[in-house]
Amino acid sequence: MKTVLVLNGPNLNTLGWREKNVYGTMSLAEIERNLTALAERLGVEVRCFQSNHEGALIDEIHRARETADGIVMNPGAFTHYSYAIRDAIAAVELPAIEVHLSNVYKREPFRHVSVTAPVMLGVIAGLGPIGYELALKAIVAQLDNVKGE
Amino acid sequence: MKTVLVLNGPNLNTLGWREKNVYGTMSLAEIERNLTALAERLGVEVRCFQSNHEGALIDEIHRARETADGIVMNPGAFTHYSYAIRDAIAAVELPAIEVHLSNVYKREPFRHVSVTAPVMLGVIAGLGPIGYELALKAIVAQLDNVKGE
Amino acid sequence: MKTVLVLNGPNLNTLGWREKNVYGTMSLAEIERNLTALAERLGVEVRCFQSNHEGALIDEIHRARETADGIVMNPGAFTHYSYAIRDAIAAVELPAIEVHLSNVYKREPFRHVSVTAPVMLGVIAGLGPIGYELALKAIVAQLDNVKGE
Amino acid sequence: MKTVLVLNGPNLNTLGWREKNVYGTMSLAEIERNLTALAERLGVEVRCFQSNHEGALIDEIHRARETADGIVMNPGAFTHYSYAIRDAIAAVELPAIEVHLSNVYKREPFRHVSVTAPVMLGVIAGLGPIGYELALKAIVAQLDNVKGE
Amino acid sequence: MKTVLVLNGPNLNTLGWREKNVYGTMSLAEIERNLTALAERLGVEVRCFQSNHEGALIDEIHRARETADGIVMNPGAFTHYSYAIRDAIAAVELPAIEVHLSNVYKREPFRHVSVTAPVMLGVIAGLGPIGYELALKAIVAQLDNVKGE
Amino acid sequence: MKTVLVLNGPNLNTLGWREKNVYGTMSLAEIERNLTALAERLGVEVRCFQSNHEGALIDEIHRARETADGIVMNPGAFTHYSYAIRDAIAAVELPAIEVHLSNVYKREPFRHVSVTAPVMLGVIAGLGPIGYELALKAIVAQLDNVKGE
Amino acid sequence: MKTVLVLNGPNLNTLGWREKNVYGTMSLAEIERNLTALAERLGVEVRCFQSNHEGALIDEIHRARETADGIVMNPGAFTHYSYAIRDAIAAVELPAIEVHLSNVYKREPFRHVSVTAPVMLGVIAGLGPIGYELALKAIVAQLDNVKGE
Amino acid sequence: MKTVLVLNGPNLNTLGWREKNVYGTMSLAEIERNLTALAERLGVEVRCFQSNHEGALIDEIHRARETADGIVMNPGAFTHYSYAIRDAIAAVELPAIEVHLSNVYKREPFRHVSVTAPVMLGVIAGLGPIGYELALKAIVAQLDNVKGE
Amino acid sequence: MKTVLVLNGPNLNTLGWREKNVYGTMSLAEIERNLTALAERLGVEVRCFQSNHEGALIDEIHRARETADGIVMNPGAFTHYSYAIRDAIAAVELPAIEVHLSNVYKREPFRHVSVTAPVMLGVIAGLGPIGYELALKAIVAQLDNVKGE
Amino acid sequence: MKTVLVLNGPNLNTLGWREKNVYGTMSLAEIERNLTALAERLGVEVRCFQSNHEGALIDEIHRARETADGIVMNPGAFTHYSYAIRDAIAAVELPAIEVHLSNVYKREPFRHVSVTAPVMLGVIAGLGPIGYELALKAIVAQLDNVKGE
Amino acid sequence: MKTVLVLNGPNLNTLGWREKNVYGTMSLAEIERNLTALAERLGVEVRCFQSNHEGALIDEIHRARETADGIVMNPGAFTHYSYAIRDAIAAVELPAIEVHLSNVYKREPFRHVSVTAPVMLGVIAGLGPIGYELALKAIVAQLDNVKGE
Amino acid sequence: MKTVLVLNGPNLNTLGWREKNVYGTMSLAEIERNLTALAERLGVEVRCFQSNHEGALIDEIHRARETADGIVMNPGAFTHYSYAIRDAIAAVELPAIEVHLSNVYKREPFRHVSVTAPVMLGVIAGLGPIGYELALKAIVAQLDNVKGE
Repeated sequence: MKTVLVLNGPNLNTLGWREKNVYGTMSLAEIERNLTALAERLGVEVRCFQSNHEGALIDEIHRARETADGIVMNPGAFTHYSYAIRDAIAAVELPAIEVHLSNVYKREPFRHVSVTAPVMLGVIAGLGPIGYELALKAIVAQLDNVKGE
Repeated sequence: MKTVLVLNGPNLNTLGWREKNVYGTMSLAEIERNLTALAERLGVEVRCFQSNHEGALIDEIHRARETADGIVMNPGAFTHYSYAIRDAIAAVELPAIEVHLSNVYKREPFRHVSVTAPVMLGVIAGLGPIGYELALKAIVAQLDNVKGE
Repeated sequence: MKTVLVLNGPNLNTLGWREKNVYGTMSLAEIERNLTALAERLGVEVRCFQSNHEGALIDEIHRARETADGIVMNPGAFTHYSYAIRDAIAAVELPAIEVHLSNVYKREPFRHVSVTAPVMLGVIAGLGPIGYELALKAIVAQLDNVKGE
Repeated sequence: MKTVLVLNGPNLNTLGWREKNVYGTMSLAEIERNLTALAERLGVEVRCFQSNHEGALIDEIHRARETADGIVMNPGAFTHYSYAIRDAIAAVELPAIEVHLSNVYKREPFRHVSVTAPVMLGVIAGLGPIGYELALKAIVAQLDNVKGE
Repeated sequence: MKTVLVLNGPNLNTLGWREKNVYGTMSLAEIERNLTALAERLGVEVRCFQSNHEGALIDEIHRARETADGIVMNPGAFTHYSYAIRDAIAAVELPAIEVHLSNVYKREPFRHVSVTAPVMLGVIAGLGPIGYELALKAIVAQLDNVKGE
Repeated sequence: MKTVLVLNGPNLNTLGWREKNVYGTMSLAEIERNLTALAERLGVEVRCFQSNHEGALIDEIHRARETADGIVMNPGAFTHYSYAIRDAIAAVELPAIEVHLSNVYKREPFRHVSVTAPVMLGVIAGLGPIGYELALKAIVAQLDNVKGE
Repeated sequence: MKTVLVLNGPNLNTLGWREKNVYGTMSLAEIERNLTALAERLGVEVRCFQSNHEGALIDEIHRARETADGIVMNPGAFTHYSYAIRDAIAAVELPAIEVHLSNVYKREPFRHVSVTAPVMLGVIAGLGPIGYELALKAIVAQLDNVKGE
Repeated sequence: MKTVLVLNGPNLNTLGWREKNVYGTMSLAEIERNLTALAERLGVEVRCFQSNHEGALIDEIHRARETADGIVMNPGAFTHYSYAIRDAIAAVELPAIEVHLSNVYKREPFRHVSVTAPVMLGVIAGLGPIGYELALKAIVAQLDNVKGE
Repeated sequence: MKTVLVLNGPNLNTLGWREKNVYGTMSLAEIERNLTALAERLGVEVRCFQSNHEGALIDEIHRARETADGIVMNPGAFTHYSYAIRDAIAAVELPAIEVHLSNVYKREPFRHVSVTAPVMLGVIAGLGPIGYELALKAIVAQLDNVKGE
Repeated sequence: MKTVLVLNGPNLNTLGWREKNVYGTMSLAEIERNLTALAERLGVEVRCFQSNHEGALIDEIHRARETADGIVMNPGAFTHYSYAIRDAIAAVELPAIEVHLSNVYKREPFRHVSVTAPVMLGVIAGLGPIGYELALKAIVAQLDNVKGE
Repeated sequence: MKTVLVLNGPNLNTLGWREKNVYGTMSLAEIERNLTALAERLGVEVRCFQSNHEGALIDEIHRARETADGIVMNPGAFTHYSYAIRDAIAAVELPAIEVHLSNVYKREPFRHVSVTAPVMLGVIAGLGPIGYELALKAIVAQLDNVKGE
Repeated sequence: MKTVLVLNGPNLNTLGWREKNVYGTMSLAEIERNLTALAERLGVEVRCFQSNHEGALIDEIHRARETADGIVMNPGAFTHYSYAIRDAIAAVELPAIEVHLSNVYKREPFRHVSVTAPVMLGVIAGLGPIGYELALKAIVAQLDNVKGE
């Protein structure tokens, strides 16, 4: 069975109480629960990990090389400056999709820049918690594709 | 029944033979066919329109105000400079999702800038034809949400 | 009798229902009606034309060379990128005044840049529908001036 | 009776002999005389003030809070850097219109930037002395509007 | 017999009366007549098309894929912002040469930027109507080259 | 007894009625009264001066060289462009602290730049009227320090 | 009793021996001791935390939501790039004041930019260790204010 | 007899005690005394004026139109932002030379920009008090030239 | 008989073995031989000169003032920074055409900037060795034109 | 015996399998082994440390102040944004050399910027694993130099 | 007797016939003759050298270290990019004055930047040939000063 | 036996007396002597060449294609603007290492940019004369590597 690593970066542990007008009221636990249920329906496994520590996320990405087949990642604010996470994603060479809950293009200019997007398969932004689900589906579709080739 | 307008901008009529290494081999007709089938399953209607004419796209967006409930749009190269399309989307006040087949963040710098994204609900990029399907699902989810409130 | 061409660019056909807090509630038809009435009082004729198509506006500007004595133009979003419209205005060498309903300097940075203003006689911005009337008066004054020299 | 303050900034006292090809031959006294006559016809009063001193203009704007209902201002070169005048206009919260005799967008790049425009109701540029008259009419129309609400 | 599509963008229909000090006095009809004569001498066919409509030019470029062997194009002001035309040229994968009548590097800074040049075979600028003829010769030489390989 | 000059720049005389949501409701007179009282408790003297005239502020700074031991200054909008005030502060070589009532970093980008801060001892921003009091305490501490060495 | 969290970022544990000409000779322990003493006099509690780990600081900020009433923070070099810390401060919605020992505006250009300041209540820079004390007083004043409303 | 106006801008009254390592120890009075003596030798008259008030300098420049034949000006910090002084110099159309005591190109980047230089005859920088004398000689040479033609 | 100077800048002596995928396999000697043959057919003379020394090229351009009627020049990398060559071309006031073998707009950004193009009659880029021949023809046409006037 | 700390930043633990075309096939363990052998020959000790955690690297740098005489560091992606590591290096005041395996100047523009280089003794880039050895030799030479003075 | 080296850079050998409206009609030989005469009056020797070769100018500057006491230099277009000449001037540590015939601040933006000015004693621009004479006088005054100390 | 060309650019002939605090006291002759000795130990030959003439350096690089196996080059100030040298290095396709005596990243911003580095194998900066020796060793290692493959 394929495994998809679902990574969340800094401050995403505060979903549910953080700036609700921007991020909504669903907690990260609920999002992860929904993803787990969806994964089951899609016949894959998800492993969820959140950290406010850039290094911990990088360690986890490295581990994914051996233990996962794809990555769904919301890098949070690291999106805008963590070239180290970018390099980690590039190093493991797994299909990865970047997810943002809010439409970053509607917000401050610094949020329009993603240093991680160029090493991702693609980006989904602004669709709220459903964005993670769409990303999971897209990763699974991608894995099926590759398998099929 | 809800209607979703599926708009494609300049050069997307050339899918299937245009820079296949970037855009793949599926034609726009196939993409639209798949979307129509998916729409049926989701219980909505899609109306598809492609044009290389900025003005024709704007006219169509205006018409959507009376005749559609949401928009899925790949503005093609207009993404990068058509403030007129941006204003049209803002004017009709329908939920709209921007779709790009390729991961624009991996390509030339001018493709990293979207002048239309700030008036969209969200953006899906880099996932190929499946991106349209995910966008359609997200629009439908959004319409259901609003309805439900 | 002198003729003044009144041109409106993309999305100005949506006046009356588009972002009312920015653009007010008066429709383009009403604005054009008021201008026609004012023109009559000023002893000139106005010809009104709106299009969401850049090419159609350029064609109309070219025609003005033979059929009009001055231009009042709200280029809408084309203000910010249509060097083609700029070149058209420069080509016909008629006195032209650029009008904006909203105070563009209060809004997004991209609206602070006008690529068309350098070939205009002048600019009127932020005064709402009355801006068109002031522009018409200024064009008429300009035509009288030139005539008188 | 409503009062409109007509403010002119640095070097506008030199109108009539300053760079005539840019600014024309009408002196500031004539412009002010014409405005006074127009004001009478419009049923309002104008109070005219010119200074080359930024501080004197700010003092005058402050006084307008108690003694005027609107402002027509040509900030001259202060347009391009006087954030202090901008703050003064914002502080008094009166409707104000910025006027420029020349089409600033045709001239040096530094003249394309107005630091005061964002706190104005609107801007009129490039129409010569008639620009002041149009601004006065627009202010009066604005005051009538507000009164009527 | 090989066919070369000769495309002219916005405002080039005004050659002969537009800013003669910049663009000279030869009309587009004369230029096209000269090109047709030259083509005959070179043993190729030219098909000429001018439009002020970006979409019409794109449609024509797409048609060229089946009906022409090379393109000579003066994109006019679209040179500076039409990423859609750029994408169209890239899509059809025909050898194309960009022509400008005036030396764009002597003029306003915005004219120094060509968004279309990177997908062209080459650029000829500043040589007046003869530039089209040189471009035609170069395209023919290029077609002969390729044929010969 | 040590003397601290308390300088306020343009528009700070309007405190109490200017943009209350940004600047609060306390008038400059009250602020100065509070500072005088605090100064007494701290065993120093304060001399307060406000002007909308850049030149008057510079003259006052020069006078401080002979008549004061430190400066607390809110340069108002001059913060963002008055290199002349910067040079005056640098010339007198007194310890000076820059105070802003509002958090300038939350506001328009032009307010993020201080041309005067590099010649100050330090900056206090965003703390409202209490900012002046903290600055006064810091200047006194600084003067005591120097004295003590 | 109110609690104020005092946070220090990377390299601030080296105070006392680090670049003494810039940062002085007082160690962080002494600064924290002084703050604790001051807090006692002000009737509040301070909790001090320093880390060179961005993630550890974010974790601590999150904890503050439940366990503190305000924050005094010197983000050290994170000031200039840690959007993650900025988001953490924004998430907890506590009044926070940014402190810098040195006058950052006198130093390298990268130190003039604070990505965290826009979510702070205010900023105190350049006043040395006393800056922390002033910040503590300001936070306490702010908490008293809010309480009183 | 020809008259040359010698203008000094903000902070130049502090010469002699201001940042002596940059500006030297000669007072403005001495510089003006030397210039007066030199003028006598050259058979011209100098009138000296210094102010920290931009408006006073502009007033004086305007007066020069009737009462002087040339201008030697050290605009001090106004060099870097006073477009109003630039416009005043342009308005009076007298030959003017800009003088700086220090080599501004060796100092902070903001001092490398002169907004006044483009309307001057020329610039002399970095040569200390002798710079004024050279400027006076150059103005006199220029006046003799023009006279002689 | 008219003479055209054909100048080649740095590294063009390496044609034939330098980066063949970019510059092709034809040596400079062959190009010059072809040009000489063409010149004969056109009834003009060409004088060819190549140097890696900027000063030698400038000296040669100066000499052309007396000894040539036009210039065809490939400035090589000097295109991007040699304002001295630009000034030399401007000084001799001969019609000159800039040639680049490769399409510089397809390559590194620094190659998109030509500091010499603004003083040229025109530019031909990307057409390989044939570009020189087209330039020679254009210069001859230009010389015939001028002669004919 | 002197000790040199060899630090490696994020993703350098992946050497051997990460983007081999860029970074080669030698693992970090091998590199460290080679360095240890070289150190022995040079009569110094090396202590090797790698982490993906910025904070851990900073902690280690601080410890070096007491326990090492010099530093060889490949900061990995932290090179481009970690002002915190820069401050740590500056704080410990040990001679340090920055090493990059790849020639960063050949790669993406963000890799051309090193925020850490200004506090280093020097930089070695692009020479692969041998770069570490050269850096070690240079540090030892530097330590010998200092000792010898 | 002191010796002053007078250096002229590229294209200054063309004075007398080059762009006379910008550079006047006096030849370099005349300028050098005048300088030699003036030098005699001032009791110093001048050695004049002009070259279009950057390297030749650098060689000459190096020689000046042993054979001259000061430098008057018009670097021509090298002003704008020759960091090599800048380094040469810095290396010889002689007082040097940069001269420009035209007012470079009135011309193209690239001429506003001097890479050599920061290592000069000062700059004289826009005063025509007399600028060299003023520079010579200033160098002599400087040499007398230093001698006198 | 392999030959390594050691190139030094402008002003490096002045080592020993040029800005000793930046460049040290060792002359270029000594550096070259040391390199020759080292080369002998390494079993290769070095050929040393210095010039202040860009063209002479380019000529020498071209010659290296036939006569050398690798290049060690300190381009001096040409590093920052000589695209011609960059093109020469790219043309000869030899392994080349760029050396700087000083840590250019600690100095003026213009020294942070190397236009030549992207075509080099690598860069060594800031290590003084030993940098050349390390570069020679790295070139030899590189040549051995290639040989061995």
